[in-house]
Amino acid sequence: MITSPSSVRRSERSRRATLEAALELCTEKGYGRVTVEAIAARAGVSKKTIYRWWPSKGAVMLEAFAGMLAGATPFVDTGEIEADLRTHVNGIVKLISTPPYGPAYAGILSEMHHDDELARAVREQLVGPRVEAAVERLRRAQEQGQIPEDADLPLTVEMLYGPVYYRHVLRKPAQDEATVAALVAHVLRSLSAGPRPAGEGGAQASRGEG
Amino acid sequence: MITSPSSVRRSERSRRATLEAALELCTEKGYGRVTVEAIAARAGVSKKTIYRWWPSKGAVMLEAFAGMLAGATPFVDTGEIEADLRTHVNGIVKLISTPPYGPAYAGILSEMHHDDELARAVREQLVGPRVEAAVERLRRAQEQGQIPEDADLPLTVEMLYGPVYYRHVLRKPAQDEATVAALVAHVLRSLSAGPRPAGEGGAQASRGEG
Repeated sequence: MITSPSSVRRSERSRRATLEAALELCTEKGYGRVTVEAIAARAGVSKKTIYRWWPSKGAVMLEAFAGMLAGATPFVDTGEIEADLRTHVNGIVKLISTPPYGPAYAGILSEMHHDDELARAVREQLVGPRVEAAVERLRRAQEQGQIPEDADLPLTVEMLYGPVYYRHVLRKPAQDEATVAALVAHVLRSLSAGPRPAGEGGAQASRGEG
Repeated sequence: MITSPSSVRRSERSRRATLEAALELCTEKGYGRVTVEAIAARAGVSKKTIYRWWPSKGAVMLEAFAGMLAGATPFVDTGEIEADLRTHVNGIVKLISTPPYGPAYAGILSEMHHDDELARAVREQLVGPRVEAAVERLRRAQEQGQIPEDADLPLTVEMLYGPVYYRHVLRKPAQDEATVAALVAHVLRSLSAGPRPAGEGGAQASRGEG
């Protein structure tokens, strides 16, 4: 069977319609009440079509969310790591606290709890690549002497993302920009080397500024 | 109506049986498949009795979990803030990654997403008092000159708990003791005053050690 250009276009259109329908319904009804049937009806595709591309409702939502996340929270590199981390974390906070993405992601996190396949997909397709990209951006800052050579980059990423998840999951008010700025400043300051919260440390010598 | 001592005892026994049954069933079936009916049957009480005390399954689970949490993760005060925070965070990590409490809490967090009353209960009855106790312990450390006078204590608590929640929610492996120690050391180091990750800061003078 040869796939014609027009059928590829049709597929792509159906795919987009499905992702949009999923997010729309999530806004209107809340994640828990969205069904694959309803997504299919809204998107004007068959249930069979949806299941050909995605194993579950959670997987549809994940793809819709991941697409938005990557677009809305790029890892800019202006050469200033502190400003860039602020931009990045603010982007995540904004996305995660705005319908439909916020509720959609909360729904995905909730569903992950009893859907092992979705949990793996979230870690591998969404979180993993984001963490790698974050570590990559931090590594460039390291090369430029903006953060210490021996900084623990994966821990740095967890300290940045952790409080955002903490508030999101507990449905506390999202961070405002001042709080994000304070978080980023604290996390960067925490990277200064030394066994305890010391003042002037030897291993800090490589940091170009301050 | 006068409540006799024996009926109080009976009530207390039913209450405990209900909480134990809830956690047992959660271990056996997973949070999502536990029903109030099943809890009542296992505990040997009526559904009516359960609903007299708790508005929902989530509320039963919350009380069972909160009781354990407070017992398992006290705020010790040995006079050494860094060691005490390690003890505390390790206790939370252990509890949150061990059945039945780990899955029960994940279930509660998941249910909070579409149960506003439960969300409020979790924040007011579980998270709020824990955060206050944590801030209290940090304040004593502040008075003893172990952390800077101008440290942002609520932010400190979020930086400690955030990464624990982050891993729990994403179902990543829980922190081991070395990772917790690194987190605590970083968070304490981040509290040194100054507008940027600077080396020797004026406002650090009040810290007694380092």
